[in-house]
Amino acid sequence: MNFASDNTAGVAPQVLEALVAANAGHAPSYGADPLTLAVRDRIREIFEAPSAAVYLVGTGTAANALACGLLTEPWGTVFCHRNAHIEEDECGAPEFYTGGAKLTLVEGDHGRIDPAALERAILHTGRGGVHNVQRGMVSLTNVTEAGTVYTPEALRELSGIAHSWGLPVHLDGARFANALATLGCTPAEASWKAGADVLCLGGTKNGCMGVEAVVIFDPDRGWEFELMRKRGGHLFSKHRFLAAQMLVWLAGDLWLDLARHANAMAARLSAGIAAVPGASLVHPTEANAVFAALPRAAHQRLQDAGAQYHLWPGDQSMKGPAEEPLAARLVCSWATTEAEIDTFLGHLQG
Amino acid sequence: MNFASDNTAGVAPQVLEALVAANAGHAPSYGADPLTLAVRDRIREIFEAPSAAVYLVGTGTAANALACGLLTEPWGTVFCHRNAHIEEDECGAPEFYTGGAKLTLVEGDHGRIDPAALERAILHTGRGGVHNVQRGMVSLTNVTEAGTVYTPEALRELSGIAHSWGLPVHLDGARFANALATLGCTPAEASWKAGADVLCLGGTKNGCMGVEAVVIFDPDRGWEFELMRKRGGHLFSKHRFLAAQMLVWLAGDLWLDLARHANAMAARLSAGIAAVPGASLVHPTEANAVFAALPRAAHQRLQDAGAQYHLWPGDQSMKGPAEEPLAARLVCSWATTEAEIDTFLGHLQG
Amino acid sequence: MNFASDNTAGVAPQVLEALVAANAGHAPSYGADPLTLAVRDRIREIFEAPSAAVYLVGTGTAANALACGLLTEPWGTVFCHRNAHIEEDECGAPEFYTGGAKLTLVEGDHGRIDPAALERAILHTGRGGVHNVQRGMVSLTNVTEAGTVYTPEALRELSGIAHSWGLPVHLDGARFANALATLGCTPAEASWKAGADVLCLGGTKNGCMGVEAVVIFDPDRGWEFELMRKRGGHLFSKHRFLAAQMLVWLAGDLWLDLARHANAMAARLSAGIAAVPGASLVHPTEANAVFAALPRAAHQRLQDAGAQYHLWPGDQSMKGPAEEPLAARLVCSWATTEAEIDTFLGHLQG
Amino acid sequence: MNFASDNTAGVAPQVLEALVAANAGHAPSYGADPLTLAVRDRIREIFEAPSAAVYLVGTGTAANALACGLLTEPWGTVFCHRNAHIEEDECGAPEFYTGGAKLTLVEGDHGRIDPAALERAILHTGRGGVHNVQRGMVSLTNVTEAGTVYTPEALRELSGIAHSWGLPVHLDGARFANALATLGCTPAEASWKAGADVLCLGGTKNGCMGVEAVVIFDPDRGWEFELMRKRGGHLFSKHRFLAAQMLVWLAGDLWLDLARHANAMAARLSAGIAAVPGASLVHPTEANAVFAALPRAAHQRLQDAGAQYHLWPGDQSMKGPAEEPLAARLVCSWATTEAEIDTFLGHLQG
Repeated sequence: MNFASDNTAGVAPQVLEALVAANAGHAPSYGADPLTLAVRDRIREIFEAPSAAVYLVGTGTAANALACGLLTEPWGTVFCHRNAHIEEDECGAPEFYTGGAKLTLVEGDHGRIDPAALERAILHTGRGGVHNVQRGMVSLTNVTEAGTVYTPEALRELSGIAHSWGLPVHLDGARFANALATLGCTPAEASWKAGADVLCLGGTKNGCMGVEAVVIFDPDRGWEFELMRKRGGHLFSKHRFLAAQMLVWLAGDLWLDLARHANAMAARLSAGIAAVPGASLVHPTEANAVFAALPRAAHQRLQDAGAQYHLWPGDQSMKGPAEEPLAARLVCSWATTEAEIDTFLGHLQG
Repeated sequence: MNFASDNTAGVAPQVLEALVAANAGHAPSYGADPLTLAVRDRIREIFEAPSAAVYLVGTGTAANALACGLLTEPWGTVFCHRNAHIEEDECGAPEFYTGGAKLTLVEGDHGRIDPAALERAILHTGRGGVHNVQRGMVSLTNVTEAGTVYTPEALRELSGIAHSWGLPVHLDGARFANALATLGCTPAEASWKAGADVLCLGGTKNGCMGVEAVVIFDPDRGWEFELMRKRGGHLFSKHRFLAAQMLVWLAGDLWLDLARHANAMAARLSAGIAAVPGASLVHPTEANAVFAALPRAAHQRLQDAGAQYHLWPGDQSMKGPAEEPLAARLVCSWATTEAEIDTFLGHLQG
Repeated sequence: MNFASDNTAGVAPQVLEALVAANAGHAPSYGADPLTLAVRDRIREIFEAPSAAVYLVGTGTAANALACGLLTEPWGTVFCHRNAHIEEDECGAPEFYTGGAKLTLVEGDHGRIDPAALERAILHTGRGGVHNVQRGMVSLTNVTEAGTVYTPEALRELSGIAHSWGLPVHLDGARFANALATLGCTPAEASWKAGADVLCLGGTKNGCMGVEAVVIFDPDRGWEFELMRKRGGHLFSKHRFLAAQMLVWLAGDLWLDLARHANAMAARLSAGIAAVPGASLVHPTEANAVFAALPRAAHQRLQDAGAQYHLWPGDQSMKGPAEEPLAARLVCSWATTEAEIDTFLGHLQG
Repeated sequence: MNFASDNTAGVAPQVLEALVAANAGHAPSYGADPLTLAVRDRIREIFEAPSAAVYLVGTGTAANALACGLLTEPWGTVFCHRNAHIEEDECGAPEFYTGGAKLTLVEGDHGRIDPAALERAILHTGRGGVHNVQRGMVSLTNVTEAGTVYTPEALRELSGIAHSWGLPVHLDGARFANALATLGCTPAEASWKAGADVLCLGGTKNGCMGVEAVVIFDPDRGWEFELMRKRGGHLFSKHRFLAAQMLVWLAGDLWLDLARHANAMAARLSAGIAAVPGASLVHPTEANAVFAALPRAAHQRLQDAGAQYHLWPGDQSMKGPAEEPLAARLVCSWATTEAEIDTFLGHLQG
């Protein structure tokens, strides 16, 4: 019963096999190997973006922070959701890689930026000329940090606002595959056709070992990104082992199959929770994460039974009335089983 | 009728005379001159802080940003009011000098931080261990950006919260003299006795040409500050001319006299506005700035008559219904005259 | 015939097996897994440093740059060899992670810092008080970038100079195992007993896939390092896969066996080259890299035959007299075979 | 007898009068005042650069560091003379404002960069692609730190090398007026016609109180500079007082007259020293600074007599044989008198 994160799961067997296969013989280092070129080409194909610049890094924080560093000046601000990963979970990495840009937090229900709030925030930022930080970029996340999914239309609306101000759009796609599995649209429709200028495509949370692709739809920015990546210590020497993971993951439908499984497990878990008296959903379950409010007593039972998950936000206390609900985040992955879920629900019902 | 800012005024005559007097002969550069030592000693005396480290810089932004750089690590966050000068008017200078720290915006009426909101913000920041930015420091401003004044008791409450979490307190005193003029307490009571670890004591807005003192009550941090100041390009070679300004300003009661005058002018302006039908105060007038909502038609009359001031916030538009009120900031200085105010009020009444 | 780098080789079979084994089931992310704890304990044991702080990252540049960020202030300077990896091959990563520290280049033959030159450089740096950058730290490299090896005595002499000035010592050990294989001393004798305050222990070049350990002998600096690592995007979520590599590598003598093999191959290659008329060694061969000057005609023959290696430095030109020697770097790895070397030597002889 | 620096002198009387005159009434702050516009226009006129962007700051370090920040990316390197002010006397300010760029030190006699050494350094920097820092910019200084003066031809040769590599050229002109006074050419001939893309035109050392102009000959970079200046805390609110200094200084020939005087004094001092047995010049005296080697005994006599100057470099010791020469820097200013020099020479002769 491990719902702590999709990154507590291991690596999908196909990915592991690909790593073993990639080990034969020597290969040029630092990304000049054939597998890296093949990943780049495969991503260009899948995304219908024949000239996109594609780079691999090892962590999602690196991908996001480097993308921000590419898209805004140090005196710019990044408009993002109040609960965006870049705001809450990266220890200031975007500030570091941008040279000290600000993050302007925008409100919106269920992890999705409210378009009117975005418009207001952008308008407000420019009021003071040289005295203010400048409008820098907009960062969106799909799947959101609340486990919800933006439709392409919703992304286009927000990107449209950004672009109307001349601001580039970063799309944090740490769970992009899960969003696609929900939406059923094409990768292009959920990224550049919806206004994303740079997509961080996450492999790690969805069956890979540690690889994220940064897809820059304007390839003229590629060289600058390469320098930033190297300077950040994120250019891997034995680069084929990043590439091998992502290549097999994207070669066929593996990435989507793994995501569909995770989403299906979350749907099962969500439906089960919703049916339990005293339990309720905090956000609609639209991908692979369930946000639910459970009575403190239920949490105690689940934790006693060994269930792994996080109270969310993390500053809630287990001390207090037994019937009072505390919110939790329950994340399913490619490795989650129906049995785990049913066991969890059993303990929840008490 | 210039109420645009207290920095549109010139230099008090006594300060100018001191600059002329300071020009005689050679003097050691970079702060080794006798005037700089005398300023340091005078500040120590006034503040009853015999070992404080004291440094001069040329702008308030430099003073504040360097103080933040001294007090927080790059991975820390600065808890400050949503409308603090360091957030709204310094183009990211605190982010620059801290190496990319975050500013966590705290709410509170009339420019004053609400203690409960500060406590919540500090608590919330620590929820995620290494994944979050860390609690860094608290920044207070007195006079606030809304023209209100914290009492020593109010400062102590906020500083007490900060210190209970081990966080140092920065006090932006760009208008510290104006606050003192209102409070009537001692400089020590409004600074270190109220919990400030570093005070930025502003001279520029109150009759000097361009000088701010950074008073570091823990002198062990002095050398680090000196290096940061030099590295920021803020160590003036002909340093005696910074010192001369501040020395005469602080030598007797000049600083307080100038501030009392500015505050008195603001009180006169505020009372006059409050008596005009259709006009109202946005914030209580407690120092040298008046925040008032005036009908658009009144703004038009005043602007036609040559009155200088800023709509506040700056993203309001002069286009719209004539009777609709727009908020404005009207700042009085040591140089403001009763005649200016009365002329202004005459045009306001229409 | 791939001598381009020790990072063009694949992963040692034992390491690959360990990765497969580590994949079973769920594991806590971000380094809270049992394998990470086991690596930490094993490193403490091997290094006779029971309280050392140990952290894993994915690249050598990350390890070095983070270590520099830990050991010097932004206004400090890093004393290092003119040809150190941190100077020549990291695209300014140390400058990035230190917040803009300087690197002061120190001379010395065959990649080793000359003690007298280090003393002079340190002395000179402090001449100007606040106007200069300050003395920050000393960075040593073993195996050096010239393929030579410092003895513990030589390290102690340089570290002694650093410590006499109060400067901490960073040891870039990207090829630390190769140095140990040459020296035959204990890990402690080649690190903290020789004055290293932080060791970057490289796994990648010597049979791992992508893992480096940063060993901080003063554990009080650990938390700061953790924040810097996260903020740099170098905290891996599926952390067990970093740990698994290094654990098997260090569990017995694997790391030393792999290094001994690489060194032996280099010795064979070096001896072969030295016996060829017109060829000569540029640096003594003391570990796994051979630096040799070969006639341009020999380079042409070798390249035609498919030999992979770099001219060193890289700004030499293949255009020019056939008999003129050009310097090259030839690196052996755990995967280098005697057959490769003998084929290379055959082509060299022409 | 104060030869410690040209910044130990006071302010020229005309400059002080201009400050007093500028104090009348209110003025728009932050550089929107008429004096600032007038300075801009006057600099455009003097430099025959009708569209140049012109900004004022308070210190030379700020001017230089901001210029570097404008001209190179963080992953670039600044090619400069080994003894350039940006390398030796700014505590890493260029590194700070560039976000961590490197300074690559180039050799050359008497403070002047050797063209062949510059060419080699630039060539060498690009050898390693993404692994190296990139070629960023070239920084020249006139008057050099050795008190020598580049001719326009010499500047053109170095700028030509820079531009052939696509690198912009920064000209540190802290003593630009002194260089002009020596050269007798036009300001344009010594700046943009000689290849400078950005000139830092120093007023402080030559009779002003604290003002330097940054002249950006490509005005498209102006807005970026404004943001960097504000973010660095270098945008003065009472900006008219910066402008007033420089306006009077440049209005007629004051700047050149002051510089001619300083240079003439240095020539007198230099000739006097050269005539003393046991004393010798270290660099040719071409502007307002004399670099001379004097016996330790002579230093003792001079210091006993109260002469102010610096041993140069500063890490020489007064302990040692009396007849051994130690090098010193002796700087003349607009305020130096013949009597001071003759007194100095009298003590020198013993």
